[in-house]
Amino acid sequence: MYRTHTCGELNMSHVEENVVLCGWVQKSRDLGGMTFIDLRDCYGITQLVFDMETNPSLCQQARKTGREYVVQAKGKVRERSNKNKKITTGEIEIEVLELNILNKSEIPPFTIEDETDGGEELRMKYRYLDLRRNPVKNNILLRHKMAQEVRKYLDSRQFIEIETPVLIKSTPEGARDFVVPSRMQPGTFYALPQSPQTLKQLLMVSGFDRYFQLVKCFRDEDLRADRQPEFSQIDCEMSFVERDDILDTFEGLARHLFREIKGIHLEGQFPKMPYSEAIEKYGTDKPDIRFNMMISDLTQAVKGHGFKMFDDAEYTGAICAEGCSGYSRKQLDELTEFVRKPQIGAKGLVFVKYAEEGIKSSVDKYFSADDIFEWADIVNAKKGDLILVLSGEKIPTLTALSELRLEMGTRLGLRIKNQYAPLWIVDFPLLEWDKEMNRFYAMHHPFTSPKPEDLDLMESDPLKVRANAYDLVINGVEIGGGSVRIHDASVQKLMFKVLGFSEEEAEAQFGFLLNAFRYGAPPHGGIAFGFDRWVAIMGNQDSIRDFIAFPKNNSGRDVMLDTPSVISEKQLEELQIKISRKGKD
Amino acid sequence: MYRTHTCGELNMSHVEENVVLCGWVQKSRDLGGMTFIDLRDCYGITQLVFDMETNPSLCQQARKTGREYVVQAKGKVRERSNKNKKITTGEIEIEVLELNILNKSEIPPFTIEDETDGGEELRMKYRYLDLRRNPVKNNILLRHKMAQEVRKYLDSRQFIEIETPVLIKSTPEGARDFVVPSRMQPGTFYALPQSPQTLKQLLMVSGFDRYFQLVKCFRDEDLRADRQPEFSQIDCEMSFVERDDILDTFEGLARHLFREIKGIHLEGQFPKMPYSEAIEKYGTDKPDIRFNMMISDLTQAVKGHGFKMFDDAEYTGAICAEGCSGYSRKQLDELTEFVRKPQIGAKGLVFVKYAEEGIKSSVDKYFSADDIFEWADIVNAKKGDLILVLSGEKIPTLTALSELRLEMGTRLGLRIKNQYAPLWIVDFPLLEWDKEMNRFYAMHHPFTSPKPEDLDLMESDPLKVRANAYDLVINGVEIGGGSVRIHDASVQKLMFKVLGFSEEEAEAQFGFLLNAFRYGAPPHGGIAFGFDRWVAIMGNQDSIRDFIAFPKNNSGRDVMLDTPSVISEKQLEELQIKISRKGKD
Repeated sequence: MYRTHTCGELNMSHVEENVVLCGWVQKSRDLGGMTFIDLRDCYGITQLVFDMETNPSLCQQARKTGREYVVQAKGKVRERSNKNKKITTGEIEIEVLELNILNKSEIPPFTIEDETDGGEELRMKYRYLDLRRNPVKNNILLRHKMAQEVRKYLDSRQFIEIETPVLIKSTPEGARDFVVPSRMQPGTFYALPQSPQTLKQLLMVSGFDRYFQLVKCFRDEDLRADRQPEFSQIDCEMSFVERDDILDTFEGLARHLFREIKGIHLEGQFPKMPYSEAIEKYGTDKPDIRFNMMISDLTQAVKGHGFKMFDDAEYTGAICAEGCSGYSRKQLDELTEFVRKPQIGAKGLVFVKYAEEGIKSSVDKYFSADDIFEWADIVNAKKGDLILVLSGEKIPTLTALSELRLEMGTRLGLRIKNQYAPLWIVDFPLLEWDKEMNRFYAMHHPFTSPKPEDLDLMESDPLKVRANAYDLVINGVEIGGGSVRIHDASVQKLMFKVLGFSEEEAEAQFGFLLNAFRYGAPPHGGIAFGFDRWVAIMGNQDSIRDFIAFPKNNSGRDVMLDTPSVISEKQLEELQIKISRKGKD
Repeated sequence: MYRTHTCGELNMSHVEENVVLCGWVQKSRDLGGMTFIDLRDCYGITQLVFDMETNPSLCQQARKTGREYVVQAKGKVRERSNKNKKITTGEIEIEVLELNILNKSEIPPFTIEDETDGGEELRMKYRYLDLRRNPVKNNILLRHKMAQEVRKYLDSRQFIEIETPVLIKSTPEGARDFVVPSRMQPGTFYALPQSPQTLKQLLMVSGFDRYFQLVKCFRDEDLRADRQPEFSQIDCEMSFVERDDILDTFEGLARHLFREIKGIHLEGQFPKMPYSEAIEKYGTDKPDIRFNMMISDLTQAVKGHGFKMFDDAEYTGAICAEGCSGYSRKQLDELTEFVRKPQIGAKGLVFVKYAEEGIKSSVDKYFSADDIFEWADIVNAKKGDLILVLSGEKIPTLTALSELRLEMGTRLGLRIKNQYAPLWIVDFPLLEWDKEMNRFYAMHHPFTSPKPEDLDLMESDPLKVRANAYDLVINGVEIGGGSVRIHDASVQKLMFKVLGFSEEEAEAQFGFLLNAFRYGAPPHGGIAFGFDRWVAIMGNQDSIRDFIAFPKNNSGRDVMLDTPSVISEKQLEELQIKISRKGKD
């Protein structure tokens, strides 16, 4: 054993003990005749002291020990004269009697401190050094703790952890697969799973009753910010359950995690909101309900006054920002600029100031005070409030209103850190129409059950059919989703028909699952949570990247490993594949 | 909720309760006016009763309910007249009042019973049905329990579970990689990890102190029996430790698992045996030490008596089978046949019967009784024993003796089920010489530390250098191995030199790791266990396949998913790769 204790555990109870510590030199300081080294390991920091008077050669040695050197220090614990209450070891220090350099270090490319001088690119390249920094290290420790608690809860609820294969079959439905050429059967490929969806359904057919897995999934998509080509899911499935059995079970998981990880007790049942209501009231299927400021529909109220924008609009909607009637020209200009950003895309912003001295809008030319009071009535505004109105095509306008609402929520300090507002969104549409492909797609996946009461609309009015599907949303972030699955062969057949699959196509792609369903599939359903995302929320951060030990950048590159990279001709030959550059070959 | 209870929980305390159960029809029997259905779910079997007299239509319905139908039964719990002590629910039955068919089933392609009539191929194709059978299901449940206990132990010992990436960089050293073509950077590839070896070492450089992961690994090898292209490892690494710290920690894990999973308390420290001793005494580096029957070296004792086989042999060795002097001609012929099998490859078997009436060998022509008594002395034989002698090239002969020893151990009932004899094999050779490639290879991997006392042999006599490496062997099966790693840049340089790497080659392949080692690498080491294998041992079985939910066959095919399979032209185009058949293109 190289050490008797870690750098995080010594305190007043150890005074006078002889100890051996190991770690990295965080920093050293010379103060007159004394040299101090802050020795760091995974568990904390302990101060080492060297005295020029009593042991000048050791003190000289300490002075030559650079940052990030790995050292072993033998010495005696003593009480500090100058105590540091911020760290657990702050009451003691080590009077060092022997110092061994276990490994040297070059000067790191950026400082290993909570606030570093290293840029993103540099820190990604030297990720192993970035991981030494407390903020990043603590994220990884949080992830570890979350993973253990997830398993503890699910295990206690009779969920069985079952590993599903990583080398599976490519299915064109859904996002793009990563594929793996087979050497033993040249010309054929495995695919990496986008999720173990069909496999977990097979496990239900096998009778496993409750399955879970913390599992890596893969999607070869053009990466948007904060997406990773490989990501982790908490993947779950249950048999002989109805929707609310599933929701109750996973509310339990969320409750358990918030309690164990954050010490937060989430009160009451999580609210459930139909998709259509979420869209109408919040403009999004993942509303942040830590604050109200809901959207009101003004479409009818504003028409017929000669204001062309409103008259031509499919939809006009508004939010009411409490207490903001005093907003300055500059502040309103900022908001106008905000909604005009390309990613929001509104043409302009109409506002109404409901001030003490009366009501005033940016469209007073077209509307009387009475007209405007009617709006105020619809949006529930009172004196002192600011009404913000957007207009245009319905869905884009609702989306823009949602963004504006979040912006106002942030400005007004309504999105409170460490306050958590979970919400189930339910009754998603089963299908969406793809204009380009001229066909329906399953909004969730082709195995999602329609709501039984909507079954008779499947052929007559497919877009009206609601799915027995749900998402868990926390603070405006979707952390998971799932559905009750189809377990009836005739419903599955109908689903494939509506999706435009011939029987042969369905058989070719999902034959194994359809086959399995012939031998007694139980009613079942499940859910999958984005684990990276959920951990990031627990860590109060927006980006998932720093909750992944070795993430990839936005082009899907691991800049530390320097991959993807070329492979040898021999490898290509063995796989019997060739590189074919576009336009060449 | 579809049910009030599972099929495994009702007993006498529930009599008179109204319950709802769900499950699969295991079988039904008509006995006069009664029909019985055994209803099965993940948790057990409960007997349903239907009475032709009291409810003829329901009873008729029950009679039409086929095997593997999924049903919901509502009824009342009552005491059975004919109790079945073998199952936990055997004291009660359900008097059914309502029966709902949740799903029908075609007749399964094989019987869903502990002993099935289905062949291997058929059961693999319908794996989801095979998983319904108790023996297979219980393996998967055992695996779940093992996984939870592994994590519980390691978490309690401050190991942090960290997910390492699956899309990494291909390194030609070691086995063959599976690769994944990159679409975003055409012409380049990711590789799937053969193990997270270098990544876990980076985590030590990051200061994580103790890491673990239950992780999927991948090797594109020509599959031998009972190898899988994807397999699971318990992967661990620790900092600031010496060899015995690591061995103690993982003895603790083994002890924990045997106690929690099997109720077996492994007594005392696990023995440690140098590799060279294992080879000399057992002919293998993974000896089954549940029994002795060690190999004795007779090379010198048998030379010079005119028996050409012995005189020409590099090595002659023997084992002593206690109490077998009475073996018949037929039994000895069987043993001779056994050692002559191509996979054993011995030319012939010499035997000595040390019977009550005197000593007698198959080579009495060449050796006197005194000669033979000398052999008996060397192998520690006593009256009643049988000595079995093999001769030839040293290593193949030792290997054959090892196989013969296991065969005799099995015949004599010395390899007792549920008796576990763990053993550390230590001091492996660091290097092996590859005749074909005309270079040294690292026996473990290039980051394994030589034993410090052998360092000066690195250039003068590399094959003599012992590694600071170890394997854990239980009952003749290697379940894990690891090493103390090199953390000193100069030793790593020397290692690469001996392996014939130029500095450029080392940099190209392992640059990221060598780079990391410049910034303060702590002394570290670790181990990886074959999780599939370890679970199989706990389940008292030889094959790992039935401990994997969806395994692949010996050609690396998933016959259920029917993959690897062709992918679309569009996919190939997007990846900018082409299939090139050998001999064509």
